[in-house]
Parts: sequence; structure tokens; C-alpha cells
Amino acid sequence: MIQHPSPSYSIIIRIELLSKPGMLGRATSAIGKAGGDIGAVDIVGFEKNTIIRDLVVSVANIETGQRVVDAVRKVRGIRVLNVADRTFMIHQGGKIEVKNKISLNNRDDLSMAYTPGVARICMAIHEDPGRVYDLTIKKNTIAIVTDGTAVLGLGDIGPEAAMPVMEGKAMLFKEFGQVDAFPICLKTKDPEEIVEAVKWIAPGFGGINLEDISAPRCFEIEERLKKELDIPVLHDDQHGTAVVVLAALINALKIVGKQFKDIRVVVSGLGAAGVASIELLLASGVKQIIGCDRGGILYKGRKENMNPIKEKIAEKTNAERIQGDISKAMKGADVFIGLSQPGVIHAKDIKKMTRDPVVFAMANPDPEIMPEEAGRSVRVMATGRSDYPNQINNVLCFPGLFRGVLDCHAREVNQEMLFSAAHAIASVVEENELREDYIIPSVLNRKVPERIASRVKEAAVRTGVAREH
Amino acid sequence: MIQHPSPSYSIIIRIELLSKPGMLGRATSAIGKAGGDIGAVDIVGFEKNTIIRDLVVSVANIETGQRVVDAVRKVRGIRVLNVADRTFMIHQGGKIEVKNKISLNNRDDLSMAYTPGVARICMAIHEDPGRVYDLTIKKNTIAIVTDGTAVLGLGDIGPEAAMPVMEGKAMLFKEFGQVDAFPICLKTKDPEEIVEAVKWIAPGFGGINLEDISAPRCFEIEERLKKELDIPVLHDDQHGTAVVVLAALINALKIVGKQFKDIRVVVSGLGAAGVASIELLLASGVKQIIGCDRGGILYKGRKENMNPIKEKIAEKTNAERIQGDISKAMKGADVFIGLSQPGVIHAKDIKKMTRDPVVFAMANPDPEIMPEEAGRSVRVMATGRSDYPNQINNVLCFPGLFRGVLDCHAREVNQEMLFSAAHAIASVVEENELREDYIIPSVLNRKVPERIASRVKEAAVRTGVAREH
Repeated sequence: MIQHPSPSYSIIIRIELLSKPGMLGRATSAIGKAGGDIGAVDIVGFEKNTIIRDLVVSVANIETGQRVVDAVRKVRGIRVLNVADRTFMIHQGGKIEVKNKISLNNRDDLSMAYTPGVARICMAIHEDPGRVYDLTIKKNTIAIVTDGTAVLGLGDIGPEAAMPVMEGKAMLFKEFGQVDAFPICLKTKDPEEIVEAVKWIAPGFGGINLEDISAPRCFEIEERLKKELDIPVLHDDQHGTAVVVLAALINALKIVGKQFKDIRVVVSGLGAAGVASIELLLASGVKQIIGCDRGGILYKGRKENMNPIKEKIAEKTNAERIQGDISKAMKGADVFIGLSQPGVIHAKDIKKMTRDPVVFAMANPDPEIMPEEAGRSVRVMATGRSDYPNQINNVLCFPGLFRGVLDCHAREVNQEMLFSAAHAIASVVEENELREDYIIPSVLNRKVPERIASRVKEAAVRTGVAREH
Repeated sequence: MIQHPSPSYSIIIRIELLSKPGMLGRATSAIGKAGGDIGAVDIVGFEKNTIIRDLVVSVANIETGQRVVDAVRKVRGIRVLNVADRTFMIHQGGKIEVKNKISLNNRDDLSMAYTPGVARICMAIHEDPGRVYDLTIKKNTIAIVTDGTAVLGLGDIGPEAAMPVMEGKAMLFKEFGQVDAFPICLKTKDPEEIVEAVKWIAPGFGGINLEDISAPRCFEIEERLKKELDIPVLHDDQHGTAVVVLAALINALKIVGKQFKDIRVVVSGLGAAGVASIELLLASGVKQIIGCDRGGILYKGRKENMNPIKEKIAEKTNAERIQGDISKAMKGADVFIGLSQPGVIHAKDIKKMTRDPVVFAMANPDPEIMPEEAGRSVRVMATGRSDYPNQINNVLCFPGLFRGVLDCHAREVNQEMLFSAAHAIASVVEENELREDYIIPSVLNRKVPERIASRVKEAAVRTGVAREH
């Protein structure tokens, strides 16, 4: 797999150079040749005959980083003083904190915010439990709950190692949705225990975002919590992804001029995201879906590599009961949706698709097929990556979705709300802007969460799950 | 019990007055007569012939508040436009929030803080679990865990109604200890389930502050968690209170010129705070302690109103096996420590004490005996209230204690650390400042948490429980 230099892997090299012309050029040439991509160049200070500079260098991986530093070390007249990893620097000490919304400067402040004044607030809630939404953080606060079993593409790395992702997610909730989200990383993988833990901690939260819990346990856990809790529960890997896939597909189909009811879709991957995407596509009117996983094409009656949720999906998909490997499924497909592993399909599989193929290859960090390999015969290509056009990323969905849910104090997140979120995202790309390489808005587009929140609220009211209008 | 106007119960009355001399005086007189204490008076705006003003008025309770407003309504030439409760205003929407420590302005920020860059941070922790302390919020973050069964003096009001106190506590942690604390209010009262819940959520936290869990369950829960978790666990109602009691007693004994080994102490209340205070006093060298509760004096062999922890305390106290009511215990006592109920002792009981009686009456909001009733024969009087001298409040202890614990990455909080905290608090009152009405520093004194943190760290290092020096 080709690896490009990425700001996600960038280092700061502090060097001391003789102050004479051409020295910086030598350093930058050496860096470039070794595979480093130079960003900012700052002057840190001056010594007698030397200048100290910081160079920010993006690299593709650890090896390239080492090669770059070694190359700079070899340049005569330049001394490497320090090498720092920018990503590690950012994460140092964690990325979120708890802040007070009011100040505590004197005894009066204390006696209102804490004892004895707080007792009246407690009693107000005790007497009218609904007031917990007005008088505490509950209304704007959600828990991001994981057991660390399916973190990014890294697998079961445990609750501690999952923390950086959950903190990152909390940041995105705040930045794009003004939602206060707090990570809860659980030291248990038992579905029963996860359900219990979430039910016990629920009183202080206005919603639960389940995250990076491996399939098929995630389905059972979400279903039970939805049933047993009176606050909205959403497994983002399932529904967040499904919403963004649907949003991208809405716009892709406009470009190729096809209808949901007519298309044939191959979904690779029957984990959390794959299953939820299939469900949402079926509900959107797609009639022909073929699911594939490591066991090949899913069909009713398949014996190997099954679980209860796959049984359910087998009932609703692949009516022709096609069997075989994914290559066979690709024949005559209009749309490929990859939520699985790198390199699952190849150029020859794309050739089997109908006219104007739509390919969403979203495996992370390396897609099911690289855009370069997929080639020009693909009409609309999307990946999960930020370094290609059409990044399908559930960051687009969750901040706005929970914003809407919390604003109307929704009891749950239903399918109508997920649809509305998908249409909201799709609608941010105006008809006249729509192009093969622009079917989905940028993750940084502030219109997205705003529009999702407002459409989700409308849907919640329409379907009777909003407690406040 | 006498109730004084308190800023913890203050209202803002917005009034419209005819703009002519004497009008404001009429309003303020009416308020004063009705029992309101006037604070700030602001001008909000002018109408044609009138002025609109906001009056901040402290009152003692709801009835007085209503009487004050009614009195203002009756004044001719004045119209009440609005009445707002300042305490409720402060709590609206909750008192804490989650904030991002770094900004997310562009794709580079996203790719370092979140995917794909975050994957390297996760793997660094996965490969070296100790790095969770450097690379996540764990090192500076604690959970404030309650089941809402013993909230302030309000009793079992449940996890939702407990939230305002836990948020307030989180504020104090941040303001005075720079500790990030997050409230976890549990919907279970079962000790086994509470222990499980805390163990499951522990990975993301650097410490656990148990709070407002009723006795005797709190003892078992704390003991088990201390044993089963590798992060420090502390039930603040027990040890935070005991530390501040000990701090106050250290200074009180200096004034009366007595030694720990010689004094006779009566402790009223055998709940969380009472039991922990007895334990800490015993460890401080006090030889003669008599505990009392609703069942009267505790003695070895008592049958009624017992539990395993009281059995344990009975073994170590009241060597003479005195029986009877608290009045009997007071005979010859040097020190009374009240952690129980209002009105438990009376002037006649104080008279039975030895010369220079020390009385800490800390029941909240109304003490075991009011200072007015205790009278002048008491040499050193302290309460839990902010409107009398010598406020014994565990706000003095917990922010600095946890600051110290987190700074040295302590595995646990041991008795040596609690001692050090008590001595740190006591030492903030300099020898030359020490007076009957100044034995304990103000809860707003920033020297207190600072000194506690540094002494607690030293103690942790000394006793070998610090993981970092």
C-alpha cells in the first residue's frame, strides 16, 4: 500500500545551522530526498555564529521519520538538537478538561453553588425529577461508552488504549455540536455487564453514544439499552456510518441518474457499520443488496461464519441466493460499499459492475481498493480518507445528530431521524455544486451539524419522540 | 432553630418605581421589616416617569422570601416586575462543562487529534499501559461517585437529585485543586453493584472520590474498592471530614494547652464521618474516646443499633464501658465532636465538661448545639457553618489532597497521608494568629490546598505509595 506523508505523522526537528547562506537549503533538500514533507519553518533563536530553527516535517511512517532525521544529521554545518513528535505533543496530558461555568470567588458564590444553597436545588429535583434536565448538566451531556474491543482498525486494544479516541470524539462533539461528552471506557467485555454499567451510570447523562464495541455484541448491547433506558442510545459505528453512507449515496445517485429502488448494491463487511448501512439502505427503498464478509457472499442458509444478526440480514438480502466470493457479487452491481478490509476488491471486479459504477471504499486507513487501482471506469469514488476527494467520515453525523436529539430532549433516535440526518448532510452540497469529486461536504463545514440538528429535531417532533418542542 | 438571611437563599426583585425622592427608601424599609437583607441595588433602565431597579435580597427561607415580595408589592408607587431566585439561576443548565484543550481548526488538527494520527497514541498505550497517564486525561481526572443515599443532610434523595452537589464538588476540585472531576451518579444502592460499576468505569480515571453514600454500606464499598483497584479511592465524607476535624483539634489543643494522649473526647454520630474521625483520632494518640449515636453511648457488648463497623469501634473505645445517653458521656469530656443531628446536646451538658471545653458541633445546616446556647463557658467553638467563626468544612481538604495524590501518581491514600493533610491545614494558621475564634483557615485560603498537596506528596513518597517523585 502506498503511504503518503501526512500531518497525522509529523515531527518537529530542532536544528542549529551555521549562519551562512545556503544552509537551510541543504537541510530542506536532505529532508525532501528522505521522504519528508516540510511545513512551517520557524526561527527559535540565535547563537554566536548559528541560528536555531524548528522544522515541521510530515512523514508517512516511523521509518521515514527516522530516515529524515538521519539525513539531516549527516548534513555538514547542521546539528540536530531535538526531535519531537507533534501528534504525541498534542495528546500529552489528554485533550479535554472539566471547566466551571461560574466563578467561585467568595463565600456567597460557594454558598449558592455548593452548601447550603445547593440543597434547595437537590430538593427541587427530588420533588420533580424532570427538573434534572434544567438544573444539572444532564441536558447537554452524553457519555461516550466503549469497551475498547473494536477501536478504529486496531481491534481489541482495551479500555485504556481506547481513551485517546474517546477523548478525540468528545472534542469533536464539543467543537461541532456544542455537546458536552465524557469518555467512559469500561473494563469488561461482557454484554450483560456493559448493559448494567451503562444503566447504572445513566442518571447524570442525557444520552449514550456507544463506540468501538465489536460486532456482534454491539447489536445486542444497543438493542437492550434502547429498550431499558429512557435516554437516547446510539451506537455510532453503526448508525453514524450508515447515515453518512446514505448521504453520500443520495448525491452519488443524482450524478449517475439512478433510483434507490433500481440499484444493485454490494456491501463488503458485516460488522457494525455494514449491518447498519444495509438496514438503512433497505429502509431507503433499495431492493437488491448483497452482503459479503470473510465467508464470502451472505445467503439464506449459509452455515459458516454466521451469527443471529447475519441470519436476519440474510433473510432480507440476496433474494437470488447467489453464493461464492465477493468477485461473483460484483457482477452487475451499481454500487460497492466497503466497510471491511484493505484490498478486498480489485480492478477486475470493478469491470464487472454496470455503467457508471459508484464505489465507496471506506476501510481505514487503507481502503478496499485504492482510487488509483479502481481507475477511471469508476464514476463516483469515495473513501474514508482525508487525502482523497469524497471523504465519508461519521464525524459529519454525530455532533449534529446528538445536538438535535438533546435540543428536543428526544426519548430515542429512530430511523426517521437517521434519514433526516442523511438528507441534511446530502443537502449541504447544492445541486449546482454537485460533481463526481464533491458528493459529500467537508467534515469542517459548520453548516452540516447545524442542518442535521434542525432536521433531526423536526423528525423527532414529527414521530412523537421529542419531549420538548 | 434561628434562621438568618443567607446569600444561599437570595432573590432578585425587579421593581419599577416612580422617579421621585424617597421611593427606594420605602422599598428597602419594607424589605428590611419583612426580614430581607438587601445586597446590591442596580439600575436596569428608565421609563418615562419611572426607574427600573434590581434589588438583591438575602432571606432565611422560602416563607420569608414570599413575605418580602408581598411587602414590596404593597408599597404605593412601586410595581414588582419580576422575582428571580439567584441560586436557581446559577444552577440553570448545570455548573460544569467539558472543554477542549486544543483547537480543531483544520484538517491537520483533526488528523492529529483524531484519526488517523490518534491510532499511534492508542498503540503506544496498548504497548506500554503506563503511558495512559501521560497521553490521556487519566492523570488529572477523578470520578465523584455517589448513589445519592446520604446527600448533605437530605438523606436518600436518589442519583438525579444528587447531581447538583456532585457538580458543585467538581467545581471545588477544579477551582481549588486544578483537578478535573466528573460526577458519576449511580442508579443502584447495592454495595456489590456499586463496587462493580466503579471497577468497570475505572480505566479512564486516575482516582475515585466516593461521596454521600450512606453508612454502613460506605465502609464496605470503600474497603473493597481500595483492595481491588490500582488507583486511589477515598470516601470523602469519612476521611475528608476526619482530616479537617483533626486539623481543627490540633490547633484547638494548642489553645487549651492539652495533649492528644490526655484528652477525653465524645464523638456524637457513628456514620461515615464519625467513624473515620474516631479512627484518625485513635491513630493520632487519643486514648479516651466515647462514641454515641441514636442508641446512646457505644460500648462493647451493646446489642441494639449495631453493625460490624460499630462492633469494631466499640472494641477500641470506651474502655470503661460507660452506658447511657450522651449526657452521661459528656461528664469530664475535654472535647465534643458532633457529626450527627441538630440539638443533640444542651447547655447543661457543656457544664459537665472539664475546664476549657472544646466543642465542634458540625451537624448541617444546624449544629448539635448553637454557639449562642453553648455560651461562654466553651473555650473553643467550631461549627460547619460559614456564618460563625471556625467553619470545619471538608472543602478545606479534598482539592489539595487529590492534587497531591494525582501529582505523585499515588497507588492509594494511606493514614500517613491523611495526617499530613491535617497538619498542613493546621499549619496555615500561624502560631501568632491562633485564637479561640481562628483555629482553622478559611475555605477560600489558597495556601491550604497548595500546602496539603505538597505535604501529601511527601507522605506518599515516604510511605512508598508514590509511583512518581
